[in-house]
Amino acid sequence: MDSDKHPLRIGLIGFGCVGQGFYDILQQQPHLGLVTARIAVKNPVKPRSLPAEHFTYHADELLADPGLDVLVEVIDDAAEAFRLVSTALRQGRRVVTANKAMLARHLPELVQLEQQHGGTLLYEAAVCGSIPVIRTLDAYFSHEPLRAVRGIFNGSSNYVLTRMSEEGSDYGPALAEAQARGFAETDPSLDMGAFDPRSKAVILAAHAYGIFLNPNEVLNLGIEAVSAADMAYAAARGQKIKVVASLQRLADGHVTALVTPQLLGPESPLFTVEHEFNGVLIEGEYAGPQFLRGRGAGGHPTGSAVLADVLALRRGLRYGYAKRATAPAVPPTAELTLDVYLRHADAGTLREVLAWLELPTEAQDSDDAGSYATGTVPLPRLLQWRDELRANNVFVARRGEVRAGEVAGATDYHHYPVAEVVNM
Amino acid sequence: MDSDKHPLRIGLIGFGCVGQGFYDILQQQPHLGLVTARIAVKNPVKPRSLPAEHFTYHADELLADPGLDVLVEVIDDAAEAFRLVSTALRQGRRVVTANKAMLARHLPELVQLEQQHGGTLLYEAAVCGSIPVIRTLDAYFSHEPLRAVRGIFNGSSNYVLTRMSEEGSDYGPALAEAQARGFAETDPSLDMGAFDPRSKAVILAAHAYGIFLNPNEVLNLGIEAVSAADMAYAAARGQKIKVVASLQRLADGHVTALVTPQLLGPESPLFTVEHEFNGVLIEGEYAGPQFLRGRGAGGHPTGSAVLADVLALRRGLRYGYAKRATAPAVPPTAELTLDVYLRHADAGTLREVLAWLELPTEAQDSDDAGSYATGTVPLPRLLQWRDELRANNVFVARRGEVRAGEVAGATDYHHYPVAEVVNM
Repeated sequence: MDSDKHPLRIGLIGFGCVGQGFYDILQQQPHLGLVTARIAVKNPVKPRSLPAEHFTYHADELLADPGLDVLVEVIDDAAEAFRLVSTALRQGRRVVTANKAMLARHLPELVQLEQQHGGTLLYEAAVCGSIPVIRTLDAYFSHEPLRAVRGIFNGSSNYVLTRMSEEGSDYGPALAEAQARGFAETDPSLDMGAFDPRSKAVILAAHAYGIFLNPNEVLNLGIEAVSAADMAYAAARGQKIKVVASLQRLADGHVTALVTPQLLGPESPLFTVEHEFNGVLIEGEYAGPQFLRGRGAGGHPTGSAVLADVLALRRGLRYGYAKRATAPAVPPTAELTLDVYLRHADAGTLREVLAWLELPTEAQDSDDAGSYATGTVPLPRLLQWRDELRANNVFVARRGEVRAGEVAGATDYHHYPVAEVVNM
Repeated sequence: MDSDKHPLRIGLIGFGCVGQGFYDILQQQPHLGLVTARIAVKNPVKPRSLPAEHFTYHADELLADPGLDVLVEVIDDAAEAFRLVSTALRQGRRVVTANKAMLARHLPELVQLEQQHGGTLLYEAAVCGSIPVIRTLDAYFSHEPLRAVRGIFNGSSNYVLTRMSEEGSDYGPALAEAQARGFAETDPSLDMGAFDPRSKAVILAAHAYGIFLNPNEVLNLGIEAVSAADMAYAAARGQKIKVVASLQRLADGHVTALVTPQLLGPESPLFTVEHEFNGVLIEGEYAGPQFLRGRGAGGHPTGSAVLADVLALRRGLRYGYAKRATAPAVPPTAELTLDVYLRHADAGTLREVLAWLELPTEAQDSDDAGSYATGTVPLPRLLQWRDELRANNVFVARRGEVRAGEVAGATDYHHYPVAEVVNM
C-alpha cells in the first residue's frame, strides 16, 4: 500500500474513448493524488484532444520506465494488450486493463503470472462498464454459493434492440444510429455477434464459480439477423428481445454458460434494462436475488471504473478468486435443452435449418411477417451449427430460462419484485 | 491479514434472526475456515435452536477472551451494543456490527476509536440487508462526486405498503401480516415511523458525502397513518407510495437528507422494489445512475452480509471514509421546499394542519375517501411540526423529487431505463 502523500504516477496506454474518459476525470480531481505521467498511443498522425508532446508512440517505453507506479492499458488490440499486460506482470507491476477479449482468452495465464511475480491485475471496467460486478462477485460473494449470474453485458447490441423496439425500425438503421452515437464500433461484429458479452461471461465465471472457461466452447448467438418481424413477434406477446448472458449451476453440479438473444417478459428485471445500460442478476443461495444496473458504455462511466481500480490498487486490493477452492469437480457442461424461436425470411432456408437442428417440420409456423419456428434443441447441437446459423442469417432466440429440474435449487421468483404493468 | 490456514475464531454476541442466520450459513460452509467459538445471549430461559452449553449469558466474557479473533455484534439494544462495540474497539479489536440505530448515533466516536486504537469496524449488514451498498459507496465510489443516493431502506414498511397496494387492505391488517411473517418487530414504531431508514441514511451520508449527520435533525415521516384512501389516491394516478430516504447534493453545495413517504410513478426504478426488498439509486457525476436491489431483511440474506464482513476483515479491509477529505465545507441543510400530499380522516383536523404548515385553505381538496391537501412546504416547517403530525395521525407524502434548480447538476433521466408500461 502506498502512502497517500506522494502522487501515484500512472502510465496510460491507449487514448480512445475509455482512455480519454479516464484522463478527463483525473484532470478534474487533482485532490486524488494521481498523475497521468505518460500516455502511449499507436497512431502518430491521428488528431487528438491534447498537444502531441503529451504522447509517446511506443508503449514499450512505459514498460521500461521504473518511475511509473501503475500501468493502465485501454487499447483495442487484444494481442498487443496481452503482450503489454503479460510483460508488465512479469515485471511484478500493478496493471489495470479493460480488454475483455484479451482477458477471456488469457485469464489463467495472467492469474498465474500475477501470483508468480507478485504483481496485481484488476479489470473492473472490462465487464458491464460502470457496474462494480467483478469486485462484488470476487469479494462480497466470495463465500456465497451462486445459483446463477445472468445479465445484459453488451450496451451496443442492447442499444440497437431498444431503438428497434421503440421505433419499429429495422436492424440496419438502428445499428447506423448506434454507430453515429458512438455506442458501436465501425466493425460491429464483436458486439452484434455476441462475442463481446461471451468474453464477459467467461471473465465472470472465474469469479462467480472459480472456473476458467474456453470462450470458443461457450455458445454465442447474436442479433445480426434480427428483424422488425422478430420485434413484432415479441411485442405481440408483451415481451422484448434482449441478448442475455447466463452462467448457471445445474442440479448435477455442472456449471453452464451461454449467450443468446432471449424473449423476456416484464417479470424479468432485465426487461427494464434499456439503451446502452447493462444489468446483472445474481442469485445467491443465502443472499437471495441481487440486481445491479448501470451504464455499460461511454468514456466517463467506463473511465470512472478504471479510476476505481487504480485507487483500489493503491489500497492494496487484489482479486481473491476464492471460488477456485470450491470450484465444481465436474467440468463445465453444455448438456442442456433450450426452448428456441427461429426465423428466416425464406421459408425454404428455414426448413433446411430445422433439419440441421433435427426439429420436426411441424415446428414451422408463420405470421404476417413470414415463417418462424419454435421447438426445443440440445445446446450442443446449437454449438455445432452456430457458424452456419450465423452465415445464413438465421435469427435464434431463447424462450425462457433453462428448464426447471435442471437448475440447482428452486429459483424463487415468488417474492421477486418485477416491473409491474400499470394502467394509467 | 491472517493466514487462511488457521481458522478464525469468532465471538458472536446475539442469537436472534441475524445471529442465527449467520451461524447457520457458517455451519454449512466449513471450508471457509471460520469457527463460531463462543456465543453470548441475554436471556438464559428463552428456548433456542442450540443446546444451552453453546451459550454464555455474559457478553463481557467474550470481550475479555483474547482467543477470539473477531467479534460479531448483532443484538437489538442500541445502548448495550454501543457499550460492547466501543469497548472492543478500545481493545483494538476487529468488530462487525449490524446495529444501525447505534451506528447512526455514534459513528463519529466509533470511527475515532477505530483510528486511535488500530481496530476495525465493519457494518455492511446494517444498511439494506444483502445489498453491498456501504462498500460500494466507500470504496468503489470513493472518488466519484455523487449527486444523490436515494432508496428504499426499510423492508418492513415496504412489505406493509406492498401488501396494502396488492390487497387493498388497510394498515392494521397489513402490519399484522408483516409481524406474523417476521418482517416487523412487535413494537413496529422504529420501522413504521421511519426512524430505522433514517439511521441508515445517516450511515450512508458518512460514506457518500463524508459527513456525520445528527439523526434528530433529519426529517423522518412514517406510514403509521397511511390508509387505503392514500393507496387509492396513488393508484388512481398510476403511482405507488414508498418510503424513500434521500441524500442529495444541492446546487449551492449543501447536502440534504430526509426520509418520507413518496408518491412514485413507474419511471422510478424504486417503483419495482416490493415486499421486503430494498433498492438504492446512486447518481454519480461520471458513472451515471446505478441501481442496486436485493433482500433488505431475513436471517440468511443479512447473515450472509455479516459473513462477507468477517471475511473482509480477514483480508484486511477497512472503510476509507475517503469523502471526508472532500466533504462540503458548508453544513448540511434543510433549506428545501417540498411538494407534499397530506390526508386526515377528519376535515377539521386537516384544516388545523394546513394552518400549522402555513398552507392556504385552498390547498384542501376531497375525494370519495374524504379530505386531503396538496401544496408546497419548506422542509424546516415539516421538521418543526413532525412530532405533532405523527401524534395526530396525519399522513404526509412527498410528490416527486426536490425541485429542479435546487439539485446539483441536471439529473438526466433521459437515457435512464424505466419500468415500461406494456399492454399485453
